[in-house]
Amino acid sequence: MTTTSEDRWTADPGELLRVSEGFLLADVDPDATPGYDGRKKEGRRDLLAGAEQLAALQERLYAQSSADPSTPAVLLVLQAMDSAGKGGIVRHVIGATDPQGIRLKAFKKPTPEEIEHDFLWRVEKEVPDPGYIGVFDRSHYEDVLIGAVRELAPPAEVARRFEAINDFEGRLAASGTRLVKVMLHISSEEQRARLMERLERPDKHWKYNPGDVDERQLWPRYMEAFQTVFDRTSTSQAPWHVVPANAKWYARLAVQALLVATLEDIDPRWPAATYDVAAEKRRLAAT
Amino acid sequence: MTTTSEDRWTADPGELLRVSEGFLLADVDPDATPGYDGRKKEGRRDLLAGAEQLAALQERLYAQSSADPSTPAVLLVLQAMDSAGKGGIVRHVIGATDPQGIRLKAFKKPTPEEIEHDFLWRVEKEVPDPGYIGVFDRSHYEDVLIGAVRELAPPAEVARRFEAINDFEGRLAASGTRLVKVMLHISSEEQRARLMERLERPDKHWKYNPGDVDERQLWPRYMEAFQTVFDRTSTSQAPWHVVPANAKWYARLAVQALLVATLEDIDPRWPAATYDVAAEKRRLAAT
Repeated sequence: MTTTSEDRWTADPGELLRVSEGFLLADVDPDATPGYDGRKKEGRRDLLAGAEQLAALQERLYAQSSADPSTPAVLLVLQAMDSAGKGGIVRHVIGATDPQGIRLKAFKKPTPEEIEHDFLWRVEKEVPDPGYIGVFDRSHYEDVLIGAVRELAPPAEVARRFEAINDFEGRLAASGTRLVKVMLHISSEEQRARLMERLERPDKHWKYNPGDVDERQLWPRYMEAFQTVFDRTSTSQAPWHVVPANAKWYARLAVQALLVATLEDIDPRWPAATYDVAAEKRRLAAT
Repeated sequence: MTTTSEDRWTADPGELLRVSEGFLLADVDPDATPGYDGRKKEGRRDLLAGAEQLAALQERLYAQSSADPSTPAVLLVLQAMDSAGKGGIVRHVIGATDPQGIRLKAFKKPTPEEIEHDFLWRVEKEVPDPGYIGVFDRSHYEDVLIGAVRELAPPAEVARRFEAINDFEGRLAASGTRLVKVMLHISSEEQRARLMERLERPDKHWKYNPGDVDERQLWPRYMEAFQTVFDRTSTSQAPWHVVPANAKWYARLAVQALLVATLEDIDPRWPAATYDVAAEKRRLAAT
């Protein structure tokens, strides 16, 4: 706890936003900014300070992995309803780090080849190597969210997927990957306003899809599906965090704080030289 | 030509730095800052202004590609001697754009599987899709640089590779990829200083490898190999640019300017809506 950014957190966002026993999504206020004693102006300033902190930690993680293959990876999993701000997290939180240390994967509608395989097939290929921060913009959770709501899979298959997800994430955690699972939570009214803005601005038209309204009409069922996801997959090794996201600045700050805390917990170290530094200095000076 | 950044360019860096008929690498002064009427302080400020411009153009390119599969891709190919600043370009030029629109690939020493295939096999897989900016941190040119200097391949094979590279890049250009090939050019003395800094700072030790000095001892042969690369592969459709890089701020600004000019030439447009905007507004308002 060293920066001014962290001083404005009155509670650990990791604790505060974590989905634990008895959590109810319906109790979360998407307008809230829990644990942060500041408003938009302070939040934006603190985001810049946090970006430096995150970038410095990431560089050390990457450096450590160059010498130590048991270095952890970090995997940020982002799930949300449309327009909730996943892209903004990628742009403003992840985008402030060195691209060389990031493995970003946006999961779209599965291709025919992907559909022929188990739902985790395309996901396993994108797991970040040691020292990297992986980011899943959507993920295997689509297969138990839209998969359940749109009945793309029968209930027994969805049930099997929950087991498979917990097994998969358990294996990831056991092999040293720190999972940071985040749902960005906006209200239905906020989504309407954001989609309307896309319709009102010609430079945003490309971001709008008529299917967005179709999905929106299933809002209550999606909220139920998210609740089920939390009930079934918020484990001690891979807990979910629900981040109120009507205030974009807060959501970005909170996700940044979750990542910073994860990296601080790893506490990566600059690796020691594997060569004789003095001898190399002499050798170099002679060239 | 709209920003203050470009106002300080007294000549088009694309023209000025391009390798054309009769180019001699030996004539390039790595300390120079050709075409830019400013120093480090102005250069840093202009880099920030250019970053906004590049990010805005990139977003429009990406948007256009969502509606038009014939949208070009941009491919930045970075080659250089060790410590010349490729990583800094990725961090400070590419890192200022939206990670969602970037396809970054660092080519390392080939794996056994890669060696079993033609040298372009691993490269073809990383060609960016329409609307993306691809970045190759090292590339297929390693196979005619270290490949020739270290005699990893016989001369006839190296000669074949030059043909294959021109064919490959010709195909890329014909299918709409804009190639921006850049060599960052530092002096041998500057490299010594940069490597020495890595040896002097424990937080940089991990970036140093004793092999760096071995390669360094072959400096004249690498310069010859680069000259051959320029002679053989600086084509009208995929010209090389040699960027003096002893001044890091200049190299970043110049590469940014090359990318901005490429995107301005593409002149991407926001795609028109493929749906009835008024009808969608009504449909959305009713939810």
